[in-house]
Amino acid sequence: MDKALKEFLSRVEFNPKTHVIPLKTGLNRVLSQDIVSTRNLPGMDKSAVDGYALRASETLEATKSKPRSFQLVKSDSIKNNETKQVWTGNPLPSGADAVLMLENVKMTRDKVEVYGPATRWENVSRMGEDIRQGQVAVRAGRRLRPQHLGLLAAIGFDEIRVFEKPKVAIVATGNELAELGRDLHESQIFDSNGLSLSALCAELGAEPNDLGIARDELEDISEKLRTGLNTSDAVVTTGGTSVGAPDLVPDAVNALGEPGIIVHGVAMRPGMPTALAVVSGKPLLVLPGNPAAAMLGFEVFGRPLISKLSGLQRTESRPLIEARMTKKVTVTLGRRNLVRVQVFLKKGEFCARPVSARGSGLISTMTEANGYVATMKNVEGIEEGEIVRVHMFDDLEEH
Amino acid sequence: MDKALKEFLSRVEFNPKTHVIPLKTGLNRVLSQDIVSTRNLPGMDKSAVDGYALRASETLEATKSKPRSFQLVKSDSIKNNETKQVWTGNPLPSGADAVLMLENVKMTRDKVEVYGPATRWENVSRMGEDIRQGQVAVRAGRRLRPQHLGLLAAIGFDEIRVFEKPKVAIVATGNELAELGRDLHESQIFDSNGLSLSALCAELGAEPNDLGIARDELEDISEKLRTGLNTSDAVVTTGGTSVGAPDLVPDAVNALGEPGIIVHGVAMRPGMPTALAVVSGKPLLVLPGNPAAAMLGFEVFGRPLISKLSGLQRTESRPLIEARMTKKVTVTLGRRNLVRVQVFLKKGEFCARPVSARGSGLISTMTEANGYVATMKNVEGIEEGEIVRVHMFDDLEEH
Repeated sequence: MDKALKEFLSRVEFNPKTHVIPLKTGLNRVLSQDIVSTRNLPGMDKSAVDGYALRASETLEATKSKPRSFQLVKSDSIKNNETKQVWTGNPLPSGADAVLMLENVKMTRDKVEVYGPATRWENVSRMGEDIRQGQVAVRAGRRLRPQHLGLLAAIGFDEIRVFEKPKVAIVATGNELAELGRDLHESQIFDSNGLSLSALCAELGAEPNDLGIARDELEDISEKLRTGLNTSDAVVTTGGTSVGAPDLVPDAVNALGEPGIIVHGVAMRPGMPTALAVVSGKPLLVLPGNPAAAMLGFEVFGRPLISKLSGLQRTESRPLIEARMTKKVTVTLGRRNLVRVQVFLKKGEFCARPVSARGSGLISTMTEANGYVATMKNVEGIEEGEIVRVHMFDDLEEH
Repeated sequence: MDKALKEFLSRVEFNPKTHVIPLKTGLNRVLSQDIVSTRNLPGMDKSAVDGYALRASETLEATKSKPRSFQLVKSDSIKNNETKQVWTGNPLPSGADAVLMLENVKMTRDKVEVYGPATRWENVSRMGEDIRQGQVAVRAGRRLRPQHLGLLAAIGFDEIRVFEKPKVAIVATGNELAELGRDLHESQIFDSNGLSLSALCAELGAEPNDLGIARDELEDISEKLRTGLNTSDAVVTTGGTSVGAPDLVPDAVNALGEPGIIVHGVAMRPGMPTALAVVSGKPLLVLPGNPAAAMLGFEVFGRPLISKLSGLQRTESRPLIEARMTKKVTVTLGRRNLVRVQVFLKKGEFCARPVSARGSGLISTMTEANGYVATMKNVEGIEEGEIVRVHMFDDLEEH
């Protein structure tokens, strides 16, 4: 699985396209260049509290019994023996180098009595302490979270250059598939992969383009793959790949160009018939038709692929959590098994209950679980009480 | 902090409004009613593998040396001594109750030789095994992830009823604030809270409405608060609340209606001047102007509030991770301290490096960190090597 992924990613070309957007539309976009601050934040020395600005050196000998008295002034600069009242965020008057908090002084008419020494720059936000002029505020290849937007606004950027969202074409194949909303003939099933894979792409900030259902015929599949390659940065297919039945999708892919299929069959469960292909530098991810296998195959191969095509510095993984297995699980030796678990917090401890034992391919294992554990190839199972690392694809439960 | 939150949430009314939307637009929406499956999934017994369907009872005495031979047929039902070839997902022919995998039989012209016994329902996906007709497929109050959309499509739902997104008005107050994109006068700063809080709301599936900047005057603040209350389900403000300076926002809130401010001042750092209010059942979250305090105050109070207003069954927490502190941190006793940390994976272990020590209010602590630890009120710090539970607001780093 890891070898297949590495080989796949190394063959995929990333041809960055960028555009400029307003900062306010920047949530979850990926910066295409470092942003260097053109100003200091704060732009000047400021008070960090509500209090009195003064010169620290003048307070050195102040004590409870021998307070030091300062003249209260309103000017923008202070001289010896003077102090000025400031609120949090106010610029420090020139000449001052410390602020004493309201509660640590005593005011009497136009005098302020100080009962102890201030240290230099006490309660002062120094100019450039948050971000210095010339400092990189946010690096290229970062997905912008709310806190990044806040920081970029604070240093005055109202436009940013970001990578274009990768476009991902999605094709479901299979004569048994019916489009959602249609009447279902006996022995048909609704296509659910188009919807779940589109949503997985959208979650990762890609632009999904669901091309619908292809019949189990080379020509129909080839046409949809060509459309996908022409209009998108990647193509994801489901169905039409297996061990026994005719490999329609791999055959169609190989007919499209070089190198074609580079991996067919991965030592994982579910997802064994997964194939990985590249045609003229563009990736095709050929997933099995089984919905659970398709979603998990996307987790393993689609997620790192989209991270690369998004311009991210590295693969964006699911949140990880370490949890204790509540029950033993037996798995197939020689493959990495993607064991679905429901992680919950019980008496302060993270526990993981396996849910995929009753059928690796059931869709409901994906909704009953909130994460998966990828076992190593050389193990036959997970013991009860063992600590596992879970990739979380939904929220933690509380029991 | 916990008491304030509990009191706040108990006073907030949730008046659910729902609407019907196409399933394909349902990602991250919250279901307003249980969805009960109107069909079995699978709709009939199906083969789970590529192989041969037959009657298990007829294979009981088959061995390597004494194979049992079956007649290969193409009909939709089989009789004694008959078998039919099936691919994964094919309906089981009537009369059959097991499937032997391709690799475990030998085909000779129109005969299939079986070398060992099959157990009943071996390699068969039973009708309704994934979801039974009448079973609840997805519960009300759940946020729909890609896997839920897949499951709902598989059982044939193309429309769903969801809660309307909560609308959240955002007001920044302060004479020192300038709108992004304008020229900055000396001593002014750009409003960054409008942008970061809007993004935090959007991340939670709410609809933010940034009402812009109010001057430090009761009238201007009151007008914006009234607009917010009239057009939205909640109002979030920043600035204009402190200990020493005039409490403009709390005063304006109290003039709007009952009960008004219910909490003012929270034993937390940053975020001490936070106020929580309710007017005619609608919540107002009054946050400090400091950007780090505003974002963290939103994490603590805004996040559970929006979960409630979204119709979620319970608060959607940030992903949690347990990590080892790389350095001692000293905090203020008597408050919950929101210590920002950068969590990274080093030699397979989760480590947390504190980043907020150099200044609790710096915006850059929010971008340098990827999570926060909320200390208990009665501790004076976190020791080096201590295991802490981190609320992750950005991705894990790898070192």
